[in-house]
Amino acid sequence: MSAHRFAVNVLPKDGILDPQGRAVEGSLGHLGVAGVSGVRVGRRVELTVEAGSEAEARAIVEQLAAELFSNPLIESFAIESMPAVGAGR
Amino acid sequence: MSAHRFAVNVLPKDGILDPQGRAVEGSLGHLGVAGVSGVRVGRRVELTVEAGSEAEARAIVEQLAAELFSNPLIESFAIESMPAVGAGR
Repeated sequence: MSAHRFAVNVLPKDGILDPQGRAVEGSLGHLGVAGVSGVRVGRRVELTVEAGSEAEARAIVEQLAAELFSNPLIESFAIESMPAVGAGR
Repeated sequence: MSAHRFAVNVLPKDGILDPQGRAVEGSLGHLGVAGVSGVRVGRRVELTVEAGSEAEARAIVEQLAAELFSNPLIESFAIESMPAVGAGR
């Protein structure tokens, strides 16, 4: 068994309304910031998975990303491998 | 002027209670998933900044990350460069 650290980035799909992104763009004037566009706001989940191999660990992360971390109707996700953690190795 | 795309990852600082992370860990049993630990849930903001240089654009992103996207008392942020966008170049 080895421990693998992953990050899952969950963002609104293209074309889906992103109210938080619009809110950020609306705040920029108050901060005196210009030149910012295309703001998308989503979630990031970082987790450690103990499994027999990196591929097995990644399969668990894909299941969680699709079933627990994202709403597949309106969000898409991407999985990143992160630098290894000390625990469990 | 050129357009630069960045992502800002905002996560609870180490040692700060992360109720969403605990909630995820509590759900794993229901999904029949074992071996997952160290779950941290945060935000990810992606944005495009039009500026004279990448360094100038990054300075704007750092300002926004510190003042708008994160609560520096309880959250830390990391900035990523993303593949360039077509607009403005």
